[in-house]
Amino acid sequence: MPSYSTSVLAHLFGIISIILLLVWLLHYREGIEYDSDNPLRVFNVHPFLMFFGFIFLVGQAIMSYHTVPGTHETQKIVHMILHFIAIILGIVGICAVFKFHDMVNLVDVYSLHSWIGIGTFCLVGLQWLFGLTFMFPGSRQSRASLAPWHIAGGRALLYMAICAALTGLMEKTALLKLQAHQRESHLINFLGLAILLFGVFVDVTVGLAHFA
Amino acid sequence: MPSYSTSVLAHLFGIISIILLLVWLLHYREGIEYDSDNPLRVFNVHPFLMFFGFIFLVGQAIMSYHTVPGTHETQKIVHMILHFIAIILGIVGICAVFKFHDMVNLVDVYSLHSWIGIGTFCLVGLQWLFGLTFMFPGSRQSRASLAPWHIAGGRALLYMAICAALTGLMEKTALLKLQAHQRESHLINFLGLAILLFGVFVDVTVGLAHFA
Repeated sequence: MPSYSTSVLAHLFGIISIILLLVWLLHYREGIEYDSDNPLRVFNVHPFLMFFGFIFLVGQAIMSYHTVPGTHETQKIVHMILHFIAIILGIVGICAVFKFHDMVNLVDVYSLHSWIGIGTFCLVGLQWLFGLTFMFPGSRQSRASLAPWHIAGGRALLYMAICAALTGLMEKTALLKLQAHQRESHLINFLGLAILLFGVFVDVTVGLAHFA
Repeated sequence: MPSYSTSVLAHLFGIISIILLLVWLLHYREGIEYDSDNPLRVFNVHPFLMFFGFIFLVGQAIMSYHTVPGTHETQKIVHMILHFIAIILGIVGICAVFKFHDMVNLVDVYSLHSWIGIGTFCLVGLQWLFGLTFMFPGSRQSRASLAPWHIAGGRALLYMAICAALTGLMEKTALLKLQAHQRESHLINFLGLAILLFGVFVDVTVGLAHFA
């Protein structure tokens, strides 16, 4: 089963991403707190929840058919619940950045990052509802005809979320006015690469499984 | 054949991207010229060749098995030649940005964009050599065992190239110090979305074909 080894790599890069993200936000930045008077601590809830709360869990949900032991029914329930938790945490993460904008009087939703991010998030919500309505209770036949679109759409949405994360890191690097070859900017670059490779290996895990 | 309609969408977003890119570089910016004394014109060769020369052609090469009429052998030759042209144009595009850095005394290869971009480009070169060495002349059996990895790798590399393009657009937007809701920044956002959707629909075309 070739998809097994790539799911291990996906987990590896996912965990590296979480560690680098925490080092960045807790050591180099102000920490993470939603109910803070320091707007920078409020902002940091956004990258933390959008990666660990949303993208990482969505990746786990996508891989659940290859990583969760048990029946197909069990895997399907894990897939649906993980997505649900991811969407809830994603909503909190998005609220955090709007709260930050309010606190420091910044304009909302003007950058490429925000356009990709909000577009992707809305489509993930729709895809989840689509899954719940048509895939979950459907007959074997109707599921089989919808599955190619559900899978292709889900893989595309994961990549779109990764693009949102990377453009977000670029935006933050620019706003922080980090210098070239400064230690923090190297950390952010490695974080970006790790997030990208997490997405790649989740996707490759699904892709290879279709040939198994 | 469901992959047919998605390849039409891929072409649509690819062509929209090229038009928006040209409007941006020719109307809002200084134009495109490799042998110019104006470093900004030299720089613009980079986004133009990296999208139209590299990403767009790589996307066409990936879709050639679904879009080029003729035998599988013909499609394979088109796939290989399009990739070869894309890599050559990509090399010129990368040279352009190094030339620009030399002209204005900027540091090379420090941003997340440059790390993703150079990493992806090197891997595409290796994947092309791998294809030429093992996939092109191999027996039907050896090709069949390598194909899942070649296809999964190629799809991942296209997405990585899209991530490079989007982070590049974010970097340029920051360097230009564009204001929120300025007409040029909206143009760049729509360009970024079109490039992302080009990648998504190339990928979905390949993904759906596996279910056909």
